[in-house]
Amino acid sequence: MRVVGVDPGTVVTGWGVVDVDGSRLTRVASGTIAPGRVAVPVRLAAIYEQLTSVFRLHEPSHLSLERNFLARNVQSAFRLGEARGVAMAAGAACGLELTEYTPMTVKKAVVGYGRADKAQVQAAVVRLFSLTETPAEDEADALAAAVCYALSHAFHDKLGEAVGAEKAPRRGTSWRRSALAERLVARRTRP
Amino acid sequence: MRVVGVDPGTVVTGWGVVDVDGSRLTRVASGTIAPGRVAVPVRLAAIYEQLTSVFRLHEPSHLSLERNFLARNVQSAFRLGEARGVAMAAGAACGLELTEYTPMTVKKAVVGYGRADKAQVQAAVVRLFSLTETPAEDEADALAAAVCYALSHAFHDKLGEAVGAEKAPRRGTSWRRSALAERLVARRTRP
Repeated sequence: MRVVGVDPGTVVTGWGVVDVDGSRLTRVASGTIAPGRVAVPVRLAAIYEQLTSVFRLHEPSHLSLERNFLARNVQSAFRLGEARGVAMAAGAACGLELTEYTPMTVKKAVVGYGRADKAQVQAAVVRLFSLTETPAEDEADALAAAVCYALSHAFHDKLGEAVGAEKAPRRGTSWRRSALAERLVARRTRP
Repeated sequence: MRVVGVDPGTVVTGWGVVDVDGSRLTRVASGTIAPGRVAVPVRLAAIYEQLTSVFRLHEPSHLSLERNFLARNVQSAFRLGEARGVAMAAGAACGLELTEYTPMTVKKAVVGYGRADKAQVQAAVVRLFSLTETPAEDEADALAAAVCYALSHAFHDKLGEAVGAEKAPRRGTSWRRSALAERLVARRTRP
Protein backbone atom coordinates (compact mmCIF):
# COMPACT_ATOMS: atom_id res chain seq x y z
CA MET A 1 0.00 0.00 0.00
CA ARG A 2 1.23 3.45 -0.86
CA VAL A 3 0.03 6.52 1.03
CA VAL A 4 0.71 10.18 0.43
CA GLY A 5 0.62 12.62 3.30
CA VAL A 6 -0.10 16.27 2.61
CA ASP A 7 0.20 19.29 4.87
CA PRO A 8 -1.66 21.95 2.91
CA GLY A 9 -0.93 25.67 3.14
CA THR A 10 -1.07 28.57 0.71
CA VAL A 11 2.52 29.58 1.53
CA VAL A 12 4.07 26.11 1.73
CA THR A 13 2.37 22.76 1.09
CA GLY A 14 4.33 19.71 2.16
CA TRP A 15 3.88 16.26 0.68
CA GLY A 16 5.40 12.86 1.33
CA VAL A 17 4.84 9.47 -0.32
CA VAL A 18 5.35 6.42 1.89
CA ASP A 19 5.21 2.73 1.03
CA VAL A 20 3.65 0.44 3.59
CA ASP A 21 4.66 -3.16 3.03
CA GLY A 22 3.10 -5.22 5.78
CA SER A 23 4.65 -3.45 8.74
CA ARG A 24 7.59 -1.86 6.90
CA LEU A 25 7.62 1.81 6.04
CA THR A 26 9.70 3.33 3.24
CA ARG A 27 9.86 6.93 2.13
CA VAL A 28 9.36 6.98 -1.65
CA ALA A 29 9.53 10.71 -2.23
CA SER A 30 8.72 13.94 -0.45
CA GLY A 31 8.94 17.65 -1.01
CA THR A 32 7.30 21.03 -0.69
CA ILE A 33 5.26 23.23 -2.98
CA ALA A 34 6.04 26.90 -2.43
CA PRO A 35 4.39 28.94 -5.19
CA GLY A 36 6.06 32.16 -4.02
CA ARG A 37 4.76 35.70 -3.82
CA VAL A 38 1.91 35.43 -6.29
CA ALA A 39 -1.83 35.95 -5.85
CA VAL A 40 -3.61 33.34 -3.73
CA PRO A 41 -5.65 31.86 -6.63
CA VAL A 42 -2.44 31.34 -8.61
CA ARG A 43 -0.87 29.65 -5.58
CA LEU A 44 -3.90 27.38 -5.20
CA ALA A 45 -3.75 26.48 -8.89
CA ALA A 46 -0.04 25.65 -8.50
CA ILE A 47 -0.79 23.46 -5.48
CA TYR A 48 -3.52 21.64 -7.40
CA GLU A 49 -1.32 21.10 -10.42
CA GLN A 50 1.77 19.98 -8.54
CA LEU A 51 -0.12 17.69 -6.16
CA THR A 52 -1.87 16.14 -9.17
CA SER A 53 1.57 15.53 -10.73
CA VAL A 54 2.81 13.88 -7.53
CA PHE A 55 -0.30 11.69 -7.33
CA ARG A 56 -0.03 10.65 -10.98
CA LEU A 57 3.70 9.98 -10.78
CA HIS A 58 3.73 7.95 -7.57
CA GLU A 59 0.18 6.56 -7.73
CA PRO A 60 -0.62 6.35 -4.02
CA SER A 61 -3.98 4.82 -3.10
CA HIS A 62 -4.55 6.84 0.06
CA LEU A 63 -4.27 10.49 0.99
CA SER A 64 -3.57 11.32 4.61
CA LEU A 65 -4.30 14.92 5.44
CA GLU A 66 -3.46 16.84 8.56
CA ARG A 67 -6.73 18.44 9.53
CA ASN A 68 -6.62 21.50 11.70
CA PHE A 69 -9.86 21.89 13.58
CA LEU A 70 -8.54 25.02 15.17
CA ALA A 71 -7.50 28.30 13.64
CA ARG A 72 -6.38 31.57 15.13
CA ASN A 73 -9.48 33.21 13.70
CA VAL A 74 -12.17 32.82 11.05
CA GLN A 75 -9.96 34.42 8.40
CA SER A 76 -7.13 31.97 8.86
CA ALA A 77 -9.71 29.16 8.87
CA PHE A 78 -10.89 30.35 5.46
CA ARG A 79 -7.31 30.46 4.20
CA LEU A 80 -6.44 27.03 5.55
CA GLY A 81 -9.69 25.67 4.14
CA GLU A 82 -8.83 27.00 0.69
CA ALA A 83 -5.54 25.11 0.53
CA ARG A 84 -7.06 21.99 2.05
CA GLY A 85 -9.99 22.04 -0.37
CA VAL A 86 -7.57 22.09 -3.29
CA ALA A 87 -5.60 19.14 -1.87
CA MET A 88 -8.82 17.19 -1.27
CA ALA A 89 -10.14 17.92 -4.78
CA ALA A 90 -6.83 16.90 -6.39
CA GLY A 91 -6.80 13.68 -4.34
CA ALA A 92 -10.40 12.76 -5.17
CA ALA A 93 -9.81 13.57 -8.86
CA CYS A 94 -6.95 11.02 -8.82
CA GLY A 95 -9.13 8.43 -7.06
CA LEU A 96 -7.34 8.61 -3.69
CA GLU A 97 -9.17 7.70 -0.52
CA LEU A 98 -8.92 10.40 2.09
CA THR A 99 -8.27 10.06 5.80
CA GLU A 100 -7.85 13.09 8.00
CA TYR A 101 -5.98 13.33 11.27
CA THR A 102 -5.69 16.13 13.75
CA PRO A 103 -2.17 17.53 14.21
CA MET A 104 -2.27 16.10 17.73
CA THR A 105 -2.97 12.56 16.46
CA VAL A 106 -0.18 12.85 13.91
CA LYS A 107 2.28 14.03 16.54
CA LYS A 108 1.21 11.32 18.98
CA ALA A 109 1.71 8.66 16.32
CA VAL A 110 5.13 9.85 15.22
CA VAL A 111 6.69 11.51 18.27
CA GLY A 112 4.57 9.88 20.95
CA TYR A 113 3.53 13.25 22.34
CA GLY A 114 0.56 15.24 21.00
CA ARG A 115 2.06 18.62 21.77
CA ALA A 116 5.42 17.95 20.15
CA ASP A 117 6.95 20.92 18.36
CA LYS A 118 7.99 21.13 14.70
CA ALA A 119 11.61 20.21 15.45
CA GLN A 120 10.55 17.07 17.31
CA VAL A 121 8.39 15.98 14.36
CA GLN A 122 11.32 16.60 12.01
CA ALA A 123 13.67 14.59 14.25
CA ALA A 124 11.15 11.74 14.51
CA VAL A 125 10.74 11.62 10.72
CA VAL A 126 14.51 11.63 10.20
CA ARG A 127 14.82 8.74 12.66
CA LEU A 128 11.85 6.77 11.27
CA PHE A 129 13.11 6.86 7.70
CA SER A 130 16.83 7.04 8.47
CA LEU A 131 17.10 10.22 6.45
CA THR A 132 20.48 11.82 5.94
CA GLU A 133 19.03 15.35 5.74
CA THR A 134 16.37 17.01 7.85
CA PRO A 135 13.28 17.67 5.72
CA ALA A 136 11.55 21.05 5.73
CA GLU A 137 8.94 21.48 8.46
CA ASP A 138 5.94 21.06 6.17
CA GLU A 139 7.57 18.14 4.36
CA ALA A 140 8.17 16.47 7.73
CA ASP A 141 4.55 17.13 8.74
CA ALA A 142 3.35 15.56 5.48
CA LEU A 143 5.54 12.47 5.98
CA ALA A 144 4.29 12.30 9.57
CA ALA A 145 0.68 12.34 8.32
CA ALA A 146 1.49 9.44 5.98
CA VAL A 147 3.18 7.56 8.82
CA CYS A 148 0.15 8.22 11.03
CA TYR A 149 -2.12 6.60 8.45
CA ALA A 150 0.22 3.63 7.98
CA LEU A 151 0.63 3.09 11.72
CA SER A 152 -3.02 3.43 12.56
CA HIS A 153 -3.70 0.69 10.02
CA ALA A 154 -0.81 -1.55 11.10
CA PHE A 155 -1.84 -0.94 14.68
CA HIS A 156 -5.47 -1.76 14.02
CA ASP A 157 -4.52 -4.91 12.17
CA LYS A 158 -2.46 -6.07 15.12
CA LEU A 159 -5.09 -4.99 17.59
CA GLY A 160 -7.65 -6.73 15.37
CA GLU A 161 -5.85 -10.04 15.90
CA ALA A 162 -5.75 -9.52 19.63
CA VAL A 163 -9.08 -8.00 20.60
CA GLY A 164 -11.16 -8.18 17.44
CA ALA A 165 -11.80 -5.52 14.85
CA GLU A 166 -12.49 -2.04 16.08
CA LYS A 167 -13.29 0.98 14.00
CA ALA A 168 -12.16 3.99 15.98
CA PRO A 169 -8.73 4.41 17.56
CA ARG A 170 -8.88 4.12 21.33
CA ARG A 171 -7.63 6.81 23.60
CA GLY A 172 -4.33 6.43 25.36
CA THR A 173 -2.73 4.39 22.62
CA SER A 174 -0.24 6.98 21.52
CA TRP A 175 2.79 5.60 23.29
CA ARG A 176 2.13 2.12 22.08
CA ARG A 177 1.72 3.45 18.57
CA SER A 178 4.99 5.29 18.83
CA ALA A 179 6.73 2.22 20.20
CA LEU A 180 5.28 0.32 17.26
CA ALA A 181 6.71 2.91 14.89
CA GLU A 182 10.16 2.41 16.36
CA ARG A 183 9.82 -1.35 16.07
CA LEU A 184 8.68 -1.16 12.45
CA VAL A 185 11.66 0.97 11.57
CA ALA A 186 14.02 -1.22 13.54
CA ARG A 187 12.86 -4.08 11.35
CA ARG A 188 13.39 -2.06 8.24
CA THR A 189 16.85 -0.77 9.07
CA ARG A 190 18.07 -4.08 10.55
CA PRO A 191 16.39 -6.72 8.43
CA MET B 1 -15.82 41.50 -21.60
CA ARG B 2 -17.19 38.27 -20.21
CA VAL B 3 -17.34 37.62 -16.48
CA VAL B 4 -18.34 34.50 -14.57
CA GLY B 5 -19.78 34.81 -11.10
CA VAL B 6 -19.44 31.89 -8.71
CA ASP B 7 -21.09 31.28 -5.36
CA PRO B 8 -19.08 28.35 -3.99
CA GLY B 9 -20.45 25.78 -1.56
CA THR B 10 -19.86 22.08 -0.99
CA VAL B 11 -23.59 21.34 -1.18
CA VAL B 12 -24.52 23.67 -4.04
CA THR B 13 -22.18 25.86 -6.09
CA GLY B 14 -23.87 28.43 -8.30
CA TRP B 15 -22.30 29.89 -11.43
CA GLY B 16 -23.39 32.49 -13.97
CA VAL B 17 -21.68 33.80 -17.10
CA VAL B 18 -22.49 37.40 -18.05
CA ASP B 19 -21.44 39.42 -21.08
CA VAL B 20 -20.62 43.05 -20.50
CA ASP B 21 -20.71 45.04 -23.73
CA GLY B 22 -20.00 48.65 -22.83
CA SER B 23 -22.85 49.18 -20.40
CA ARG B 24 -25.07 46.33 -21.57
CA LEU B 25 -25.39 43.13 -19.60
CA THR B 26 -26.45 39.79 -21.05
CA ARG B 27 -26.76 36.47 -19.31
CA VAL B 28 -24.86 33.90 -21.38
CA ALA B 29 -25.43 30.83 -19.23
CA SER B 30 -25.89 29.94 -15.60
CA GLY B 31 -26.50 26.91 -13.44
CA THR B 32 -25.69 25.03 -10.29
CA ILE B 33 -23.30 22.24 -9.38
CA ALA B 34 -24.83 19.90 -6.79
CA PRO B 35 -22.62 16.82 -6.45
CA GLY B 36 -25.12 15.10 -4.14
CA ARG B 37 -24.58 12.97 -1.07
CA VAL B 38 -21.00 11.92 -1.70
CA ALA B 39 -17.86 12.47 0.38
CA VAL B 40 -16.63 16.06 0.57
CA PRO B 41 -13.41 15.44 -1.44
CA VAL B 42 -15.49 13.91 -4.25
CA ARG B 43 -17.80 16.94 -4.16
CA LEU B 44 -14.82 19.28 -4.34
CA ALA B 45 -13.39 17.34 -7.28
CA ALA B 46 -16.77 17.59 -9.04
CA ILE B 47 -16.89 21.34 -8.41
CA TYR B 48 -13.36 21.74 -9.79
CA GLU B 49 -14.10 19.66 -12.86
CA GLN B 50 -17.45 21.24 -13.68
CA LEU B 51 -16.28 24.80 -13.07
CA THR B 52 -13.28 24.11 -15.31
CA SER B 53 -15.69 22.88 -18.02
CA VAL B 54 -17.78 26.06 -17.67
CA PHE B 55 -14.67 28.26 -17.86
CA ARG B 56 -13.33 26.40 -20.92
CA LEU B 57 -16.70 26.40 -22.71
CA HIS B 58 -17.62 30.05 -22.15
CA GLU B 59 -14.12 31.51 -21.84
CA PRO B 60 -14.79 34.33 -19.40
CA SER B 61 -11.84 36.60 -18.63
CA HIS B 62 -12.89 37.47 -15.08
CA LEU B 63 -14.08 35.50 -12.09
CA SER B 64 -16.26 37.31 -9.57
CA LEU B 65 -16.53 35.48 -6.28
CA GLU B 66 -18.79 36.15 -3.39
CA ARG B 67 -16.46 36.24 -0.42
CA ASN B 68 -17.89 35.57 2.97
CA PHE B 69 -15.75 37.16 5.61
CA LEU B 70 -18.06 35.84 8.24
CA ALA B 71 -18.98 32.30 9.17
CA ARG B 72 -21.11 30.86 11.93
CA ASN B 73 -18.03 29.21 13.37
CA VAL B 74 -14.49 28.10 12.52
CA GLN B 75 -15.74 24.75 11.17
CA SER B 76 -18.09 26.33 8.64
CA ALA B 77 -15.28 28.74 7.71
CA PHE B 78 -13.08 25.73 6.91
CA ARG B 79 -15.87 24.18 4.85
CA LEU B 80 -16.61 27.39 2.95
CA GLY B 81 -12.89 27.91 2.41
CA GLU B 82 -12.54 24.45 0.89
CA ALA B 83 -15.18 25.12 -1.78
CA ARG B 84 -13.85 28.61 -2.41
CA GLY B 85 -10.27 27.39 -2.72
CA VAL B 86 -11.35 24.94 -5.41
CA ALA B 87 -13.20 27.67 -7.34
CA MET B 88 -10.18 29.98 -7.08
CA ALA B 89 -7.75 27.26 -8.23
CA ALA B 90 -9.98 26.33 -11.18
CA GLY B 91 -10.26 30.00 -12.16
CA ALA B 92 -6.53 30.66 -11.93
CA ALA B 93 -5.76 27.44 -13.85
CA CYS B 94 -7.95 28.79 -16.68
CA GLY B 95 -6.23 32.20 -16.55
CA LEU B 96 -9.19 34.10 -15.07
CA GLU B 97 -8.60 37.24 -13.05
CA LEU B 98 -10.27 37.11 -9.68
CA THR B 99 -12.25 39.80 -7.91
CA GLU B 100 -13.99 39.12 -4.63
CA TYR B 101 -16.99 40.91 -3.20
CA THR B 102 -18.68 40.59 0.14
CA PRO B 103 -22.28 39.34 0.03
CA MET B 104 -23.32 42.81 1.22
CA THR B 105 -21.60 44.52 -1.72
CA VAL B 106 -23.20 42.09 -4.17
CA LYS B 107 -26.65 42.67 -2.69
CA LYS B 108 -26.16 46.43 -2.65
CA ALA B 109 -25.14 46.39 -6.30
CA VAL B 110 -28.02 44.24 -7.48
CA VAL B 111 -30.88 44.91 -5.08
CA GLY B 112 -29.76 48.28 -3.74
CA TYR B 113 -29.88 47.03 -0.18
CA GLY B 114 -27.01 45.21 1.53
CA ARG B 115 -29.20 43.12 3.77
CA ALA B 116 -31.52 41.91 1.01
CA ASP B 117 -32.70 38.32 1.40
CA LYS B 118 -32.25 35.48 -1.09
CA ALA B 119 -35.68 36.03 -2.68
CA GLN B 120 -34.92 39.71 -3.30
CA VAL B 121 -31.65 38.79 -5.02
CA GLN B 122 -33.49 36.25 -7.17
CA ALA B 123 -36.15 38.81 -8.09
CA ALA B 124 -33.51 41.42 -8.93
CA VAL B 125 -31.65 38.96 -11.17
CA VAL B 126 -34.88 37.98 -12.93
CA ARG B 127 -35.63 41.67 -13.55
CA LEU B 128 -32.07 42.56 -14.61
CA PHE B 129 -31.85 39.82 -17.20
CA SER B 130 -35.58 39.63 -18.06
CA LEU B 131 -35.54 35.94 -17.19
CA THR B 132 -38.70 33.89 -17.69
CA GLU B 133 -37.86 31.53 -14.82
CA THR B 134 -36.53 32.25 -11.36
CA PRO B 135 -33.01 30.84 -11.01
CA ALA B 136 -32.02 28.74 -7.99
CA GLU B 137 -30.75 30.75 -5.01
CA ASP B 138 -27.08 29.96 -5.56
CA GLU B 139 -27.37 30.49 -9.30
CA ALA B 140 -28.96 33.90 -8.64
CA ASP B 141 -26.18 34.73 -6.17
CA ALA B 142 -23.57 33.80 -8.78
CA LEU B 143 -25.24 35.93 -11.46
CA ALA B 144 -25.46 38.73 -8.91
CA ALA B 145 -21.70 38.45 -8.24
CA ALA B 146 -21.07 38.72 -11.99
CA VAL B 147 -23.38 41.75 -12.20
CA CYS B 148 -21.59 43.31 -9.23
CA TYR B 149 -18.28 43.04 -11.06
CA ALA B 150 -19.73 44.41 -14.28
CA LEU B 151 -21.46 47.30 -12.53
CA SER B 152 -18.53 48.25 -10.37
CA HIS B 153 -16.47 48.53 -13.54
CA ALA B 154 -19.11 50.39 -15.55
CA PHE B 155 -19.67 52.61 -12.53
CA HIS B 156 -15.99 53.33 -12.06
CA ASP B 157 -15.58 54.12 -15.74
CA LYS B 158 -18.39 56.66 -15.52
CA LEU B 159 -17.17 58.03 -12.23
CA GLY B 160 -13.72 58.17 -13.76
CA GLU B 161 -14.95 60.56 -16.44
CA ALA B 162 -16.62 62.76 -13.86
CA VAL B 163 -14.27 62.94 -10.91
CA GLY B 164 -11.09 61.26 -12.12
CA ALA B 165 -9.92 57.73 -11.64
CA GLU B 166 -10.35 56.22 -8.22
CA LYS B 167 -9.28 52.81 -7.11
CA ALA B 168 -11.57 51.80 -4.28
CA PRO B 169 -15.36 51.97 -4.33
CA ARG B 170 -16.70 54.75 -2.15
CA ARG B 171 -19.17 54.17 0.58
CA GLY B 172 -22.79 55.11 0.08
CA THR B 173 -22.84 54.51 -3.65
CA SER B 174 -25.09 51.48 -3.54
CA TRP B 175 -28.29 53.19 -4.55
CA ARG B 176 -26.63 54.96 -7.41
CA ARG B 177 -25.12 51.68 -8.53
CA SER B 178 -28.47 49.97 -8.35
CA ALA B 179 -30.10 52.83 -10.27
CA LEU B 180 -27.33 52.42 -12.83
CA ALA B 181 -28.13 48.72 -13.04
CA GLU B 182 -31.73 49.51 -13.81
CA ARG B 183 -30.70 52.03 -16.45
CA LEU B 184 -28.29 49.59 -18.11
CA VAL B 185 -31.01 46.97 -18.29
CA ALA B 186 -33.56 49.50 -19.50
CA ARG B 187 -31.18 50.22 -22.37
CA ARG B 188 -30.81 46.55 -23.07
CA THR B 189 -34.48 45.63 -23.00
CA ARG B 190 -35.66 48.78 -24.82
CA PRO B 191 -32.91 49.50 -27.33
